[in-house]
Amino acid sequence: MAIALLTDFGTRDHFAASMKGVITGIAPEAAVFDITHEIPPGDIHAAAFTLFACFRDVPAGTVIVGVVDPGVGSERRPVAVAADDRFLIGPDNGIFSFILDSQENFQVHLIEREFRPAAEISTTFHGRDIFAPAAAHIALGRPIEELGRPLSDPVRLPCIYPETEGETIIGRVLHIDRFGNIITNLPAEWLDSGMTAELNGRQIKNVRRFYSGAEGGELFMIAGSIGLVEISLNGASAAADLGVSVGDAVVFRKRPAGITCNTQRARIK
Amino acid sequence: MAIALLTDFGTRDHFAASMKGVITGIAPEAAVFDITHEIPPGDIHAAAFTLFACFRDVPAGTVIVGVVDPGVGSERRPVAVAADDRFLIGPDNGIFSFILDSQENFQVHLIEREFRPAAEISTTFHGRDIFAPAAAHIALGRPIEELGRPLSDPVRLPCIYPETEGETIIGRVLHIDRFGNIITNLPAEWLDSGMTAELNGRQIKNVRRFYSGAEGGELFMIAGSIGLVEISLNGASAAADLGVSVGDAVVFRKRPAGITCNTQRARIK
Amino acid sequence: MAIALLTDFGTRDHFAASMKGVITGIAPEAAVFDITHEIPPGDIHAAAFTLFACFRDVPAGTVIVGVVDPGVGSERRPVAVAADDRFLIGPDNGIFSFILDSQENFQVHLIEREFRPAAEISTTFHGRDIFAPAAAHIALGRPIEELGRPLSDPVRLPCIYPETEGETIIGRVLHIDRFGNIITNLPAEWLDSGMTAELNGRQIKNVRRFYSGAEGGELFMIAGSIGLVEISLNGASAAADLGVSVGDAVVFRKRPAGITCNTQRARIK
Repeated sequence: MAIALLTDFGTRDHFAASMKGVITGIAPEAAVFDITHEIPPGDIHAAAFTLFACFRDVPAGTVIVGVVDPGVGSERRPVAVAADDRFLIGPDNGIFSFILDSQENFQVHLIEREFRPAAEISTTFHGRDIFAPAAAHIALGRPIEELGRPLSDPVRLPCIYPETEGETIIGRVLHIDRFGNIITNLPAEWLDSGMTAELNGRQIKNVRRFYSGAEGGELFMIAGSIGLVEISLNGASAAADLGVSVGDAVVFRKRPAGITCNTQRARIK
Repeated sequence: MAIALLTDFGTRDHFAASMKGVITGIAPEAAVFDITHEIPPGDIHAAAFTLFACFRDVPAGTVIVGVVDPGVGSERRPVAVAADDRFLIGPDNGIFSFILDSQENFQVHLIEREFRPAAEISTTFHGRDIFAPAAAHIALGRPIEELGRPLSDPVRLPCIYPETEGETIIGRVLHIDRFGNIITNLPAEWLDSGMTAELNGRQIKNVRRFYSGAEGGELFMIAGSIGLVEISLNGASAAADLGVSVGDAVVFRKRPAGITCNTQRARIK
Repeated sequence: MAIALLTDFGTRDHFAASMKGVITGIAPEAAVFDITHEIPPGDIHAAAFTLFACFRDVPAGTVIVGVVDPGVGSERRPVAVAADDRFLIGPDNGIFSFILDSQENFQVHLIEREFRPAAEISTTFHGRDIFAPAAAHIALGRPIEELGRPLSDPVRLPCIYPETEGETIIGRVLHIDRFGNIITNLPAEWLDSGMTAELNGRQIKNVRRFYSGAEGGELFMIAGSIGLVEISLNGASAAADLGVSVGDAVVFRKRPAGITCNTQRARIK
């Protein structure tokens, strides 16, 4: 069974290796792989996005461990989630929130069972002392019901999906990837060739099917690979070109017929 | 069976994890490891070098997936290559070119077979949707002939090996590693103690067998571990010292007997 | 059996992949994972710390390969160590020193046996040509006694643990982690609520049990997860705040009763 790890621990320190050491000791047959360890320290939103982005790509049965945990050692609760035949292990701070937004059914349990003597559980590294052992035991087949009581009110971030307002959809920038693609929160199936997107006072009107189909310097919308609309520039960073950051608003509109670009732009302002 | 991954996806985003998720779903027993995900975005030459550099070190049967793919979604062709009992999967854009230069025999096939429903193949992430599934099926033992028709004209970069011109060999800088070692394209077996190398107007005359054998500040040639001549400085960056970059010329000459360094240098200029 | 890798090779070049390729060829069933490849080039102290930090977290039987090896190819000796049911493979340059400081018993052997033809052993990449094959064979069950003669005088760094001087303990900064936590060399069991720490002219008096228990801006001591006292700031970098670096002195004192903070501070200066 596979165990996938996401943390904000970076790759210079020993933290991720200690988690892998613990997992390997309990579940030596598990295939352990990294999602990333480069979530900015404490950035729960970035963790929630990245977990959402690969959730559907890992096979059924995979245990995903997410540890971005600024409240480690305090009263924040450790949780285990079962959703879509996969398992999520981590702190109850919203880190799994975007995955839960995409699911009709899921179960959340507290992790109350301790898999090592209490004296060996540090107050600062639950990734190693609580989450890694729990994940390894889940990978070995232990049901999450055995970890602790059900939890009905897990911490949730604002919903990943956008608000609509008449003809317009008030979206936001969820993520900017390594290539400078801007990942918005608009579901790709809503994308329509007559649609416009406005970010930072600029308007994007074109829709493309793949990156290299675009002209040099042309900003375009595209149905991205995680099922969300992205805004891209072929061979350059759309985020740098537009000067946008995670959390910025993106306003999507049906482009009215018979209106020129300039008029349209004036109307939006 | 092992599957090794090289991409320009970086390690902050979910991309590599999505590929590993797909591979693990199809070939759960495969040992998956990373070559690197830090190829500069779109840098096919850097990808070709790095694949060449470790090709002989992975065991027979390994499937190497190389995804540096600025043309993703366009008419560029996905290919599978068999060479020296190993397999290469990726876009046909020259990424495997340096490996092919080093092989007498190889077979190239198109990847025409789709391993997931067409509606689930994105136009922007063939690493996940085409290359990862193909690699996993090859690792499970499927012959590359079953992926698609043979391809006789794969895209090739200029040959990795240098041109010779009378007494001189016109080489080039292929790569600069983390330590600042300059990897040239001169085969190590051509290295000879009377040889000189000229880069950026400076001449290197010494040949060393190992790094710590050199004097402080001494630039030297060395038979590097991938079978190419490298130019190094013990404990410091030869590339920074010489001010050279990938692609710069390196002129190798047999050092004529009885000529002093100064004369020699004058002659070269 | 597990094999864990630590090097200063970085993750952009092919070096770590070549080691994994060699290991996979010899011991295809081994679970190979990374500790880190981002040790600063040639920094034996940083390597020694990071190996120490995760040593107790990897399961019995694990083979740890540590390659930070500025003397590669020279007369420095390759060694294999058995300690606490785990194995250490690497150059004899002090890299395993802090682990040895923490062990009552260990055995050190030279690696004299060659696992590939001498002509195929490079002078610049023993990670691939000597250490990876030796580690894979140990993982397959070969006793370290078969690698070469015992070595009674492995290279040691100054002891990891601090000196005491009357009421004071002269410690030092061993490491600064990604979060800016300052890891000192004071064993956590010596930490006492009446203790003070002085770094760079500033005094820390508080002891906390977990990060988020602290006030904003409050520097505090904490029993860290690797068994050493750390100095931290909740949500910010203690190292940046204090302006300290690895190697700097930390003076620990029992705080005398009945003395105010100001008086205490004056006394120290």
